[in-house]
Amino acid sequence: MDLTAATRSLSSAVSAAARLLTARSGLLLRAGKNGLTVGGSDSERTVRLTGDAMVHTDGEVIVPAGPLAETLRMLEDDLVRLVVEGSRLAVRVEGGRYALPLLSRELHLPDLPPKVSEVDGHALVTALRTVAGTAAKDDALPMFTGVRVQSFSRELRLTASDRYRMAVATLPLRSEGEPIDALVPAGLLAETAKQARGVVGLHGDKTRFGLSWAGVTVTTAVLDAGFLSEKLIESSTVDTTVEVGADALAAAVRRVGVYADDRRVLTLEVGDSHVRLASSKQDTGEAEETLKAEVSGGRTSPSFQARYLLDALQGFAGERVRLEIQPGMRACVIRAVEPGEVKLTYYVMPMLAR
Amino acid sequence: MDLTAATRSLSSAVSAAARLLTARSGLLLRAGKNGLTVGGSDSERTVRLTGDAMVHTDGEVIVPAGPLAETLRMLEDDLVRLVVEGSRLAVRVEGGRYALPLLSRELHLPDLPPKVSEVDGHALVTALRTVAGTAAKDDALPMFTGVRVQSFSRELRLTASDRYRMAVATLPLRSEGEPIDALVPAGLLAETAKQARGVVGLHGDKTRFGLSWAGVTVTTAVLDAGFLSEKLIESSTVDTTVEVGADALAAAVRRVGVYADDRRVLTLEVGDSHVRLASSKQDTGEAEETLKAEVSGGRTSPSFQARYLLDALQGFAGERVRLEIQPGMRACVIRAVEPGEVKLTYYVMPMLAR
Repeated sequence: MDLTAATRSLSSAVSAAARLLTARSGLLLRAGKNGLTVGGSDSERTVRLTGDAMVHTDGEVIVPAGPLAETLRMLEDDLVRLVVEGSRLAVRVEGGRYALPLLSRELHLPDLPPKVSEVDGHALVTALRTVAGTAAKDDALPMFTGVRVQSFSRELRLTASDRYRMAVATLPLRSEGEPIDALVPAGLLAETAKQARGVVGLHGDKTRFGLSWAGVTVTTAVLDAGFLSEKLIESSTVDTTVEVGADALAAAVRRVGVYADDRRVLTLEVGDSHVRLASSKQDTGEAEETLKAEVSGGRTSPSFQARYLLDALQGFAGERVRLEIQPGMRACVIRAVEPGEVKLTYYVMPMLAR
Repeated sequence: MDLTAATRSLSSAVSAAARLLTARSGLLLRAGKNGLTVGGSDSERTVRLTGDAMVHTDGEVIVPAGPLAETLRMLEDDLVRLVVEGSRLAVRVEGGRYALPLLSRELHLPDLPPKVSEVDGHALVTALRTVAGTAAKDDALPMFTGVRVQSFSRELRLTASDRYRMAVATLPLRSEGEPIDALVPAGLLAETAKQARGVVGLHGDKTRFGLSWAGVTVTTAVLDAGFLSEKLIESSTVDTTVEVGADALAAAVRRVGVYADDRRVLTLEVGDSHVRLASSKQDTGEAEETLKAEVSGGRTSPSFQARYLLDALQGFAGERVRLEIQPGMRACVIRAVEPGEVKLTYYVMPMLAR
């Protein structure tokens, strides 16, 4: 293998591939008449990126991902040459040679499952930022580590929960196709939310789920772990409705949260035309803050963990939100008063006040 | 106590005081006809800041530093009121009240030792950034955790070492005064380097060292732990001199360092009109990079730990440096080819190449 490529775009492709794979082990580089393919595969994922390169000699190598990504990221030259020299892949620029050992392992890059539909990348990224972040990083039940991806005739629905809160986002599909219903590892979707752009293809078959955009394809095995549903958390006993600016409420939660107890719990006291956040802690003192709000229905005043409320409100930055409060230990439902293309519904479980 | 102050400037003063103290325990607030004093004191340090405030009622309180600093930092209102209410200091803004418990502890703020001279804050900060960072964070010998501060008739000298490298910086004194020779805890000086500005006063007596600038005074007990001296490391067997750009050399060290062995050691091979950095590691491969350089004398080619070389070169950012290389296990001396107001000399001990 022998090729010359633009350093920045090669570096981006190699870094993107390394971040999309769970293990930063071997990365496959394949040079041919279609340019360069960078890919990797581990027990659950396959990632493949294509890029431009001036290929002098076709070939295929597997090299350690970490040092290759790090070297390319730090190079200042516009062009870089990758050339096999004996048992090394040499990364060459004027005055510099960085030589990586060739790994002899087998690396198979399975094809992407068939495309079933498409979504707008910006809408997908907006939805995933909140939904993927709501799944548990680590949980004994795999159901809480995944995002349920469901496609309906004109709509994609994304659902995740860590048992204490649940996020549900819907966004329009750009075309109708075979329905998807898959539980996809949240970590991969969180990384996708950092990279995807343009039009994003949705791919799937019985055991795999895939995404494709701008020269990148990602495939993962789906989790076989039951399916999250709003029915787990939904109920219809809303007796108090509060409308307030999401950013103002979040800022108040942050300030009053400094005085919250060890469980980081604060209370949302609902008044006639305001809400009052309050917290107190033995050593630190106490705090309260009052915000104007449109209140209707009852005056049910739940307590929440500050962090959960902040995570929820982040998904509504810049928007006015409606909090639908239920009595007892039932979830508070948060929605935008004027939702856009991506419709987000966030459920936060209340805590017992002390 | 009852006062109104500009939120931003009060927040700056409280945060600065908290960062300059080792323990973030109690902070004293004193309101009187001279405005507001914020201060703290622990076993080794005393910090005092003065600021403007509209004082409604004189008084003095001690409150927990952490939550006060955090609350002030997050407030969006231009003005804030601090008022004692029973056993609380209430921080009040429109719609918000954050109430801190009053600590009943005694807090004495000793006076600053007498001023002996002054330096330009910018020059002091430049020098301290490198010198204070060269001291050990933690060492069984206190000598290696301090910065030796010496004043001569027209010059201030700062010296620190962690045994593997030593930094010596000199800068002009703005006035002659009693000579100082004190070993000052490096942590305090590193924090000073983030805050000091304008003209900085140097203060000292037999057991204490102090600094003052723009309404801030800091006093610390000096370390009684022997004195660092260039004589510990200096020798005069330089046989090889290399001139090269500090930034270009640092960038090359970073790239080639990716391929360094577990000790993170790389070799500086000296040629006729270049230097060649080289490293290799069993699993990762090997790298070399060649830089143009002006070489005179011999061709002694030492090996260094990448991190030590990077720390050294950071102090010469944007400058051309001269490396004076000695044979054997003697320190390499690094100086700017054209030093400015702050003259920095950096000694790096070589490592055995494998």
